[in-house]
Amino acid sequence: MISSTRIREALLENGLDILVASSPQNVFYLSGLESLTQRLLGQKAFAIWQTDLSNPIIVLPAVDASIIVDANIPYNSIYTYGNFFLYEGTDISPSDRTVQTIKNENNFESPISALLSAINSLPLTSSKIAIETSGFSFTEFDEIRKRIAPKIEAADDLLSDLRQIKNKGEVKCLKQAVEINQNAIENAIKTVEFGMAEHDLARSYESELISQGAYPLFTAIGFGSHGAYPHAVPGTRTLQYGDLIRFDVGCTYSNYSSDIARTFSFGEPDPILQRKYEVLNGSMDHGIDLLCDGVSTDIIFNGVIDYVNEHGPDLFPTFDRNHVGHGIGIDVYDHPTISPGMGTLKSGMVLCIEPPYYELGTAGIQVEDEVHITSNGAKRFSHCHPDLLII
Amino acid sequence: MISSTRIREALLENGLDILVASSPQNVFYLSGLESLTQRLLGQKAFAIWQTDLSNPIIVLPAVDASIIVDANIPYNSIYTYGNFFLYEGTDISPSDRTVQTIKNENNFESPISALLSAINSLPLTSSKIAIETSGFSFTEFDEIRKRIAPKIEAADDLLSDLRQIKNKGEVKCLKQAVEINQNAIENAIKTVEFGMAEHDLARSYESELISQGAYPLFTAIGFGSHGAYPHAVPGTRTLQYGDLIRFDVGCTYSNYSSDIARTFSFGEPDPILQRKYEVLNGSMDHGIDLLCDGVSTDIIFNGVIDYVNEHGPDLFPTFDRNHVGHGIGIDVYDHPTISPGMGTLKSGMVLCIEPPYYELGTAGIQVEDEVHITSNGAKRFSHCHPDLLII
Repeated sequence: MISSTRIREALLENGLDILVASSPQNVFYLSGLESLTQRLLGQKAFAIWQTDLSNPIIVLPAVDASIIVDANIPYNSIYTYGNFFLYEGTDISPSDRTVQTIKNENNFESPISALLSAINSLPLTSSKIAIETSGFSFTEFDEIRKRIAPKIEAADDLLSDLRQIKNKGEVKCLKQAVEINQNAIENAIKTVEFGMAEHDLARSYESELISQGAYPLFTAIGFGSHGAYPHAVPGTRTLQYGDLIRFDVGCTYSNYSSDIARTFSFGEPDPILQRKYEVLNGSMDHGIDLLCDGVSTDIIFNGVIDYVNEHGPDLFPTFDRNHVGHGIGIDVYDHPTISPGMGTLKSGMVLCIEPPYYELGTAGIQVEDEVHITSNGAKRFSHCHPDLLII
Repeated sequence: MISSTRIREALLENGLDILVASSPQNVFYLSGLESLTQRLLGQKAFAIWQTDLSNPIIVLPAVDASIIVDANIPYNSIYTYGNFFLYEGTDISPSDRTVQTIKNENNFESPISALLSAINSLPLTSSKIAIETSGFSFTEFDEIRKRIAPKIEAADDLLSDLRQIKNKGEVKCLKQAVEINQNAIENAIKTVEFGMAEHDLARSYESELISQGAYPLFTAIGFGSHGAYPHAVPGTRTLQYGDLIRFDVGCTYSNYSSDIARTFSFGEPDPILQRKYEVLNGSMDHGIDLLCDGVSTDIIFNGVIDYVNEHGPDLFPTFDRNHVGHGIGIDVYDHPTISPGMGTLKSGMVLCIEPPYYELGTAGIQVEDEVHITSNGAKRFSHCHPDLLII
């Protein structure tokens, strides 16, 4: 799953000896580790690559040693910090032995001393290393600067760039996350009935995610005029005939995100809202049709915006958006954002395209699909209905 | 829900004019705001208190304006940043109008310019303000230092200290989170059958959380010897007769966490494991009995550790732990940690007490209960079974 070749090439291209990730997302990206202690308790974990390594070096809290074994994570070497009391029975397996070895070997007092030892164990051929800054306090980063000979630069942007292009394993997870998300919406919508509260529909949707092995990430569900609140928090508002139901919902599956939006009508919709839906849906389709390797974000952005303005001059005030989509991956907003001047889209990117319309007092209308750019054009992971679905 | 009086007193005691929160947890603590854009996309939100204010000043992305209205959050004033296109129908309600007003009034280009304007709108009576550092990059913090006259100090520790003492509303949420967590374990355990996989039991537990309005936070469930892995990731291991089942599980309810642990035996357990369970459970009870306003963490730590070593000299190798518990609140590990030298426990704290025992090759045995320290002693939110429950 790790994009080892891409990572090593990026180091060479940038004249870097070493690349260090310090945020939960990028540690996962460079190593496959999801440290519970880092994610929940804010403790530190690091993943380190060097051009000559075939697997990363991992720095993690001693208590997380078993996660490496459970997830079968390949590594070059592991440095732990902190103590943890793990006793041994009489009949321990090779896996149990590995947990104990990881925990005890290369054990340091602090995460920073473990990190410095790991870095200093590597041969330096140039004089530059890149470290993601977000996992450090000001004083910690100063300490690292003082104790490492080579020049340190921030790795944050490099890591965001790397993560834009998804490999086969990532695409598989992203596709599966979309399938689960779509299924969950479709199954939740079957439970819809007159007078039900938004939060009941939200719970129904989230239960469907869990039953398929995914986790809820965000659940914006609004009925009628509440659907016009961009981040509608599902509340006690009850469903009435003629209400539009807007879902803008996200989940994670195997650490990869899905973010899709759907709008349904409960009973016959207002004909104007129906036409608005069709224009917005058409603009998304148009944006997706324009996606290909080498296209600029300007083309996609203007394509979607212009489509709405051309097809719905009587329907919308001048339609405007800050962006019409974004990359998606480990984060729900991976780079790039689909707004003007954000550069060139490339084969291997997975993107969300979304032209939502929020009209206070009336309704929110939103469609959002996920798409994979390949050398043969854009492949959809999800499909909106061309007409507003009436339930 | 906001501890306004405590916050203002803390400002006065520390000779501070202004207190600024920048992390999602502390913004929520100081204002009740849960900004989706901050939590998911890493954008900035701030909550600002000053001694004369009866409600906080809130800085947030324009797109999150509707969250303030949905959650009915009281505020002194709101500063937004960034643009967001929100159209108006013909029949907008007072709530809709409020969303639009919040979004448009005091709108700034960047979060830092919004923050600086908010701070500079306040009268200064001393020369010190405290800002939580964790929500800023190095360069952002430097920019703030340059553009604010008074001396800035880090508010991180002050905010952790404040959050240790829970108010009535917080205690209510924490208690409810524990009840849901306990119910979910009890309902999940009813689905246990020979040969089932760990991940099926995990899914069953997590579905129960969702159906009660809570969210899964972490789910360490291990059967037999896999239960000895501290952060056991539920996998394909199947349940066999005589296996212990260890749950160490957390959820959130209304933004407050619950973390409890339970151990069950599937069929008749090994008598030694049964006795070990009873000693560990007894040590937890003993630790909870010792909890009261004014007791030092040393007393609790030593009480729990000594209990195990005295009651199980034939059962355990010398029993050792880094800590025997921790505070719990918005974070699953709130301050204080129950280890030596961590100071005095106080009325109003909510704590987890946990003496787990991990024996590689054999099993993990863990009990963890949640307790509220009051002026009348410790009140339990949860209760472990004194004997190992056989299912």
